[in-house]
Amino acid sequence: MSAASDIVPVGLSEGRTRVVIERITPAVDDGRFPIKRVLGDTVEVEADCLADGHEVVACALLWRQGGATDWQRTTMQPLGNDRWRAAFAVTELGTWEYTVCAWVDPFLSWRSDFARRVDADDVRIAALSGARLIDEAAQRAGRHGDGRLLRAWSAELGAAAGSTEVAQLHRIGLDDARAAAAQRHPDLRHAMTHPQALAVTVERVRARFSSWYEFFPRSAAAQPGRHGTFADCEAWLPYVQRMGFDVIYFPPIHPIGRTRRKGRNNTLDPRPDDVGSPWAIGAAEGGHEAILSDLGTLADFKRLILRAAEHDIEIALDIAFQCSPDHPWVQEHPQWFRKRADGSIQYAENPPKKYQDIYPFDFESAEWREMWEALVGVFEHWIRQGVRIFRVDNPHTKAFAFWEWAIARVRASHPDVIFLSEAFTRPKVMHRLAKVGFSQSYTYFTWRNTKPELSAYFTALSQGPGREYFRPNLWPNTPDILPAALQYGGRAVFMSRVALAATLGANYGIYGPAFELLEHRALRSGGEEYLDSEKFELRAWQRDSAQSLADFIGVLNRARRDNPALQGDAGLRFLAIDNEQLIAYAKVSDDRSNIVVCIVNLDPHHTQSGWVEIDPGAFGLDPGQTYQMHELITGAHFLWHGARNFVSLDPQRCPAHVMQLRARLLRENDFDYFL
Amino acid sequence: MSAASDIVPVGLSEGRTRVVIERITPAVDDGRFPIKRVLGDTVEVEADCLADGHEVVACALLWRQGGATDWQRTTMQPLGNDRWRAAFAVTELGTWEYTVCAWVDPFLSWRSDFARRVDADDVRIAALSGARLIDEAAQRAGRHGDGRLLRAWSAELGAAAGSTEVAQLHRIGLDDARAAAAQRHPDLRHAMTHPQALAVTVERVRARFSSWYEFFPRSAAAQPGRHGTFADCEAWLPYVQRMGFDVIYFPPIHPIGRTRRKGRNNTLDPRPDDVGSPWAIGAAEGGHEAILSDLGTLADFKRLILRAAEHDIEIALDIAFQCSPDHPWVQEHPQWFRKRADGSIQYAENPPKKYQDIYPFDFESAEWREMWEALVGVFEHWIRQGVRIFRVDNPHTKAFAFWEWAIARVRASHPDVIFLSEAFTRPKVMHRLAKVGFSQSYTYFTWRNTKPELSAYFTALSQGPGREYFRPNLWPNTPDILPAALQYGGRAVFMSRVALAATLGANYGIYGPAFELLEHRALRSGGEEYLDSEKFELRAWQRDSAQSLADFIGVLNRARRDNPALQGDAGLRFLAIDNEQLIAYAKVSDDRSNIVVCIVNLDPHHTQSGWVEIDPGAFGLDPGQTYQMHELITGAHFLWHGARNFVSLDPQRCPAHVMQLRARLLRENDFDYFL
Repeated sequence: MSAASDIVPVGLSEGRTRVVIERITPAVDDGRFPIKRVLGDTVEVEADCLADGHEVVACALLWRQGGATDWQRTTMQPLGNDRWRAAFAVTELGTWEYTVCAWVDPFLSWRSDFARRVDADDVRIAALSGARLIDEAAQRAGRHGDGRLLRAWSAELGAAAGSTEVAQLHRIGLDDARAAAAQRHPDLRHAMTHPQALAVTVERVRARFSSWYEFFPRSAAAQPGRHGTFADCEAWLPYVQRMGFDVIYFPPIHPIGRTRRKGRNNTLDPRPDDVGSPWAIGAAEGGHEAILSDLGTLADFKRLILRAAEHDIEIALDIAFQCSPDHPWVQEHPQWFRKRADGSIQYAENPPKKYQDIYPFDFESAEWREMWEALVGVFEHWIRQGVRIFRVDNPHTKAFAFWEWAIARVRASHPDVIFLSEAFTRPKVMHRLAKVGFSQSYTYFTWRNTKPELSAYFTALSQGPGREYFRPNLWPNTPDILPAALQYGGRAVFMSRVALAATLGANYGIYGPAFELLEHRALRSGGEEYLDSEKFELRAWQRDSAQSLADFIGVLNRARRDNPALQGDAGLRFLAIDNEQLIAYAKVSDDRSNIVVCIVNLDPHHTQSGWVEIDPGAFGLDPGQTYQMHELITGAHFLWHGARNFVSLDPQRCPAHVMQLRARLLRENDFDYFL
Repeated sequence: MSAASDIVPVGLSEGRTRVVIERITPAVDDGRFPIKRVLGDTVEVEADCLADGHEVVACALLWRQGGATDWQRTTMQPLGNDRWRAAFAVTELGTWEYTVCAWVDPFLSWRSDFARRVDADDVRIAALSGARLIDEAAQRAGRHGDGRLLRAWSAELGAAAGSTEVAQLHRIGLDDARAAAAQRHPDLRHAMTHPQALAVTVERVRARFSSWYEFFPRSAAAQPGRHGTFADCEAWLPYVQRMGFDVIYFPPIHPIGRTRRKGRNNTLDPRPDDVGSPWAIGAAEGGHEAILSDLGTLADFKRLILRAAEHDIEIALDIAFQCSPDHPWVQEHPQWFRKRADGSIQYAENPPKKYQDIYPFDFESAEWREMWEALVGVFEHWIRQGVRIFRVDNPHTKAFAFWEWAIARVRASHPDVIFLSEAFTRPKVMHRLAKVGFSQSYTYFTWRNTKPELSAYFTALSQGPGREYFRPNLWPNTPDILPAALQYGGRAVFMSRVALAATLGANYGIYGPAFELLEHRALRSGGEEYLDSEKFELRAWQRDSAQSLADFIGVLNRARRDNPALQGDAGLRFLAIDNEQLIAYAKVSDDRSNIVVCIVNLDPHHTQSGWVEIDPGAFGLDPGQTYQMHELITGAHFLWHGARNFVSLDPQRCPAHVMQLRARLLRENDFDYFL
C-alpha cells in the first residue's frame, strides 16, 4: 500500500477513460449511509471493474481515515467474472472512507500479449514497445530505487530487441521481479476513481458485543420501602459483575413530574407518596440534565460510574425526549410543543388513549434549530459527567433527520459513544434509525418464540442487507414488556429465552432482577404489563432466592466472554434438526477458529430429542472424523462423529446446550460453508 | 393526476422534513442508467415512504416527459410495510422521468385520530383543529371549486364544534366526499421530493418484439456465380415475408479492402476474383458511408428500403467500427489508430493470432473527440438514407463511454432508432452495453442446449435485474457461429433450436438461408466456422429445397404475431416436467389474457414423453377444470385437465409443442403466480 493522492477522479468529460466501476460492496443504500465496523475489524471491499476490449484491467482499493486528504492504496485481486476484492483494517475510532480506482493497464496488457507472441519479427517489435512502456514507468518512479532499476531494464530490453532470439527476449521481457517494480508505478492517465467515497463508522468493540443489565436504582435500597440511591447501587456491582454483565442501564434518573402523576399499576389517582414514572421527565427542580434528589447527587452518580468501572461495568443512561407538564422547558420554550385548538399543550395520545402526564416535542416546530441544540445538549451534558452509552427511548417518534445530525455531532468529538435504539415499531422505521447512526437496535426477539420465527428472523438479520448497519440487541423482557411466554412457561422458558438471547445475539440484555427472579405476574390477563411494575413504585427484590437464575446467566455470559464466535452476529447459521421443538444453530468467529453449536428445547414441559445435522467439511472436519463437543453450561464433554448426532434436552434440568466444537484437524483453508 | 410544479425538493437543511423515501424501483444501478420500456407500456413505480411517529404519510409519483419542466402527479397507494405503488403510461418515444414525493399529511392524520375520538370535550376541540386544517386547504385550493366547498365545510365544522353531539360532529368531520377535496390540496410545506429523477428510455414496440432474418445480399442473385445486388434482394422480400420476419439485416454493404484480403474459407492467398470479407471495411472508393458498387447504388438501396416496407419489413444495417488497410480514414486520420514500435499501424490481433486485414480504432487516441464525431456520423448518414435499425458489430471492443454518448446523441433526434449489440463476451460487459443504451443484445442462447442451462439462463434474464434494461435477442446461428448442436443433430435440432429461440425470446433471428436449408457443414471438426462461408465467397442457395424449414418458421412467426404472450420477455416461467430431455415453460402476456405453453424435446433422436405440471390457480383455472390447449404448429386441440398432463414429442415429426391455453373460466383477478 502507498499514498495515492496522484489518483484523481475522471468523469465522462474525458472520453479516453475506458474502464468502468460498478457495484462496490459493502454499501448501505448505495452509499447514502455508512457501514458499521468496530475497532480492529477488516473491511473487505469488492467491485466490478471492467473495460472494453481484451486489454488487462487493474484496480486498487483506496481508503483513508476521515479527515485525511491522501488515500492509502491496496491492489485488488481478481475473483473472476470481472469482480475484484481487497481489504483494509480500521485501526482508529471514527469515520473512515473507501472507494475504488481502476484502469486499463498498458504495461500488464503488453506483458500478457508478449508472453503469447511466437513470431520472431513480432516479438522484436513488441520488445521495443515494452522497452518504451518500462521507460515511462521509470519516469513515474523517479530518479532512484524503482526508477533506476526500470531504466536499466528498459535499456536492456531495447538493446536486446535487435536480436532474433525469441527465448532470450521472452526471458528479459517477462522478468517477474522487475515487472513487480513496473506495477508499482502504473500509468493512471486514464484511470477512473469512483466518484463516491463510501463511509465506515468505526465504534469500539462494545458496540458489537455487550451484555446489558437494566435495573431501577430506586429499588436498590437494602431496606424495603426506602427509596434507593446511587450509593445503594454501588452495593449491587459485585452481584451484576458475578452475572457477567458489562453494561448497567438505568431508566431516567431525572426529577419526575407531579402534575397528572401516575399511581401504582398505572392508575390515575396516585397516593401522595407514589413515586411516579421516571419517564415523566422534569419538575420544578429541573429537566433532562438534573438528577432526582431521592437518588443522590451528581457527585454520587459520578462516583457510581467510577466504582462500576472498577467492576468492568459501564453505566448507560436512558434518554427519553419527552416532558412532564412540570418540565422547565414547557414554560421556557412553549414553541417546542404542539398546541391544541383550545390553546393547551398537546399531550401524548393514541385516540382514544391519552397520556396526559407526557408532552411530546413537536419536530415541526418553527424553532426546531434551538430545540435540536437543546436536545443534543442533553447527551453532551451526560458525556461530560462520564456517560458513554445511551439507550434512547422511542427514537421512532422523533425525526430521523434529528438523529442523523445529533449522533454525527456527538461522535465528531466523542467517537466512543454508543447509542441503543429502543424502537419497537415497523421494520423499515427500525432499519432507518440504524442507518442514521444508532449503534444497536432493539429487535422483535422479545416476541419470536417458535423455530420458524426465530430462524427466519435471525437469518434475515445476520445475512440480509441490515448486517452492514443493524446490530441487534436482544431482550427477553423489559419494564414495559412481560411477554406471554414468560407469564405461562415457568422457569424453563426463562432459561431458554435468556440462553437464546445470549447466543443468538452478540448484544443482549435483561431487565432485572425481575428476570433472574422469574417475575411472571402480569397486571392483566392478555396484557404484557408487569403487576406492581417498578415503573410506578419501588420494589424490594429477594436477590438470594434459591430459584434465581443468576448463576445460570453467569455461566452464559462466561461462555460469551470466552468464545469469539458469540461476540459477533455475522457468523450465525441455523442447522437442521428433526424435531420442531428443538432449534439448532452454529456461530463461527470471523477468523473461523472458534465454533459454538447451540441447541435449545423450546418446549418447557417435555424432554425433546433429535438428530442435529452439521456439514463436517464446512467446519473443517474430515467427513468420518470424531470430534469433541464441550458443553459450556454443564462442563460435559460429548464425542460426536460425522454429520448426524443425537441430542436430548430435559427442560426441567436445562433446556439448552451451548457447546464449543473442539477438533484437532481443523483445516483452516478449506472452509467454504460461510463464503 | 395534476401538475405538481409546486413541489420542490427539500434537503436536510430543512429539519422539519420528517418523511424519508427509500428504495425507489425500478432503478438500474441506483438510477445511474435509465430503465427501458416501449410505447404504450405502463411504468409501475414503488418506493418505501415513512416518517417518525404515528401520523399519516401520503405520497405521490411524479412523472414527466423528458424536457418538460412540470411534473405530473399520481397518488401512490399503500401496499403495506411502508411500501407504496403507482403507475404511469409512456405515450411518446424518447426519455421520460419519474421520482417520488412524500409528506406527513396533517389533514389525513387529523382525520384518522378524529374518527377514533370518543370523549365529547376532546371531539369538540379536535373539530376546531379540523376546521382550521380544512380552511388551510381551502386557501391552497383558491377562490373557486374546491376552495369554495372547503371554506363552507370548515365553517360548518367550526360552528358545530360548539355542540356536544359526538355523532353529529363525526358525521360532519368525516364526510368522505369533502375529505377527497381536501386531499387534492395537501400541505406540502414539509414534503420531501426524492432528489434523483429516474429515467425511462421509451422505444418503439419493435425494440421489444422483432424477428430478424440475416442474409448476404451478394448471394441474392438468381444466377449462381453472379454477384447479388439490392435489386436481386427485392425478389427475396415475398419469401422473407412468408416466413414472417419483420427485420432483414445485412452484413456490411461498404467497399471491401483489397490489401491482405482473405480468400475463400478464411485463407490468406485469395484468388483475384475472391470477394473478400464485408467486415474488412473500406477501399479507395470509400468507407463506412459508401456502398460496394457490386451491390448497386445508394438509390438502389433506398428503393429496397421502400419495397421492404411494403412487405412490413425493415432493413437493418451492420455497423462494424473497424477499417481495412485501404479505408480512406487510415490515410486521413492516422492518429485514430495505434502504432506499433516499427511505425506501422497496429492490426487486430489476439497473440499469436493476427487479423492483418483489419485495423481497430484506438479509443485512447488524443483525437478521440474528432473520431467520436466521425463514428456517430456513420449512424447519422444511414439514418438520413432511411435506416432505423442497426446491428452493431463487436461493440465490446469500443469504449462504453462512446456508446453512451453516441446512442444518446442519435436518439435525441431519432428516438425510433433501434441498436442491437452483437457482443459475445463476458456477462458484465454485455450488461454494461445494454445499460449504456443498446436496445437489444445477443445472448449465450447460441450455446445453451440442455434443460438446466436454458432454464437457469432464461430465468436470470427474465427475472434478474437485467429485465429492466437487457432485451435478449436469440440466434441459433450466425455467419460466424455454426454451433456443434446444428452440425451433428440433424433436422430435428434445427427445428427445436428455432422453436426455442422464437418462443423463449421476444426478439430472435436466424442467419439464412443457411439455417432454413439446414446448412451444417463446418470448416473444421471441433470448430464453429461454416465450410464455404459466405463471409468469404458468394453462395447460391436452393431456397425451394423440400427439406427447407421455411414453412415451419412461418408457423412459428405467425404464433408469435398472434400471441402477445410471445411478444415480451418478463412473463416467462419454467414448468416442471419429469423428463430431463423435455423442457416446458409458460409465457403470459402483461395483461394476463394470453397464455402460451411450450414444450420442446431436446433429444433429436428419440420420442420423449412426460407429465408436465402447471398450477391451475396461477393460470386462472379452477383446480379440477378441463381446458383446451390449442397446438399452434399443427392446429391440433388437446383437452387438458387439472395440474398434471401427459405430453409426448416425436422429434422426427416435430420436436416442439407451442400451445395456446384456452379456458372459459379465466379468473382475471385471481392470478397470483406471476406476482
